[in-house]
Amino acid sequence: MGSVTFIGLGLNDEKGMTLEALEEARRADSAFAEFYTNIMPNVSLNRLEELIGKKVKLLNRTQLEDEGGRELLTSAQHGKVVFFVPGDPMIATTHISLRLSMHKIGIRTRMIHAASIVSAICGATGLQSYKFGKSITVPRDKPLPISVLETMSNNSARGLHTLLLLDVSAQGSQLKIGEAAKRITEVEPEFRDQLVVGAARVGAPDEKIKAGRMSSLVNEDFGDPPHSMVLVGKLHFMEIEALKMLSGATEEDLREYT
Amino acid sequence: MGSVTFIGLGLNDEKGMTLEALEEARRADSAFAEFYTNIMPNVSLNRLEELIGKKVKLLNRTQLEDEGGRELLTSAQHGKVVFFVPGDPMIATTHISLRLSMHKIGIRTRMIHAASIVSAICGATGLQSYKFGKSITVPRDKPLPISVLETMSNNSARGLHTLLLLDVSAQGSQLKIGEAAKRITEVEPEFRDQLVVGAARVGAPDEKIKAGRMSSLVNEDFGDPPHSMVLVGKLHFMEIEALKMLSGATEEDLREYT
Repeated sequence: MGSVTFIGLGLNDEKGMTLEALEEARRADSAFAEFYTNIMPNVSLNRLEELIGKKVKLLNRTQLEDEGGRELLTSAQHGKVVFFVPGDPMIATTHISLRLSMHKIGIRTRMIHAASIVSAICGATGLQSYKFGKSITVPRDKPLPISVLETMSNNSARGLHTLLLLDVSAQGSQLKIGEAAKRITEVEPEFRDQLVVGAARVGAPDEKIKAGRMSSLVNEDFGDPPHSMVLVGKLHFMEIEALKMLSGATEEDLREYT
Repeated sequence: MGSVTFIGLGLNDEKGMTLEALEEARRADSAFAEFYTNIMPNVSLNRLEELIGKKVKLLNRTQLEDEGGRELLTSAQHGKVVFFVPGDPMIATTHISLRLSMHKIGIRTRMIHAASIVSAICGATGLQSYKFGKSITVPRDKPLPISVLETMSNNSARGLHTLLLLDVSAQGSQLKIGEAAKRITEVEPEFRDQLVVGAARVGAPDEKIKAGRMSSLVNEDFGDPPHSMVLVGKLHFMEIEALKMLSGATEEDLREYT
């Protein structure tokens, strides 16, 4: 019986894989990838194939979810397979589900980790990791669920930051920071005056980070995806410094937070 | 004026840097590293120097914190510097503080992200990212602060998991999973019967993941550091499957959680 190594591609392009991942992929019998569980702004299947010196079969949502990753599982039954995924493997539930299917039929699995927005958001904004509460995804299409507002309110009541992940549709288009701010403030106007940090293309050369009150981000142009945002809780003095220097927060933005 | 690129080394050894990081380091005028903000079980300064083709100056806590990273800042004033750090940059507050000092004197900074325990713990345990509440560090030496128990209780009351990071002393030795479980259950016996997952050397070839009630982990040998643990909240059925398959949880361990 064979094995599958899940390889994280990180945030931006195929050069977000680790040196260990490259070695593993070059040794593998076959390679698969999916690019839909997260948006990587500059990833290229051709460059990935060149790097590892073999063909990479790109799988879509239907193949991985509706068909249970049949082709991947079949290859893994008689060989060493690598499976490239955006970000850090297993942040997407699809990966967990696939991994469990593999275990059930005796395929060994291993992770080669990579950067994920969950930790990279700290480097991008200067906000401290241990001050984040539960994160939540803001959906694109359905009405804004009460759980989004509750998570934000619960975290804020404890002084914690909230990472808001923005939903990606089946067609690959993502809810934008401005749209999310609009959706949230329309349902709950109290959030208009809350401090948030918008983060676009974290880890890419043209990363854009901008702090402001939620109402002011509704019309801010953050450019191409991926987008995410942080609802800011209580701030440590070093976070205040960081928001000024790295996220363009003004004294006015920080009023009542300092 | 020059620049500093903070390069994350990830979880295990120098091959946890990304392909982008390797290119950046090879182009740099000078290279620095610190290995103390997190334990990387298999990192080697010699191999790092060979990989990037230049000397790497290793900085200790005194040089970076008490002396404010003077040598690093001086080099960065007239050249392109890379600075290697364990995990993902900016998870340690030392990095944030250094970065702000650089900005103040006009040195440009950039991050090349890498894997962090904050997201890798999901891949290691099968627990889902969006179900984690605030994380907290269990200190090694001082009495257990009430904030540790409060964070665990607050998260549990909301059904959320708690990532417990284990303190590393100035001498580089880390609180072990068993010791942390002992400290917690001595102060608050109610936690004896809570389900936790111990995670040692996540991302290394000899990673060990083991679920059990907190009282049973007191005497479990997880081997060398780094160690961390998760206090488990409410479980999704897929998380239950994952804990059984990947973390050796028994039906008895999962009683009242299913």
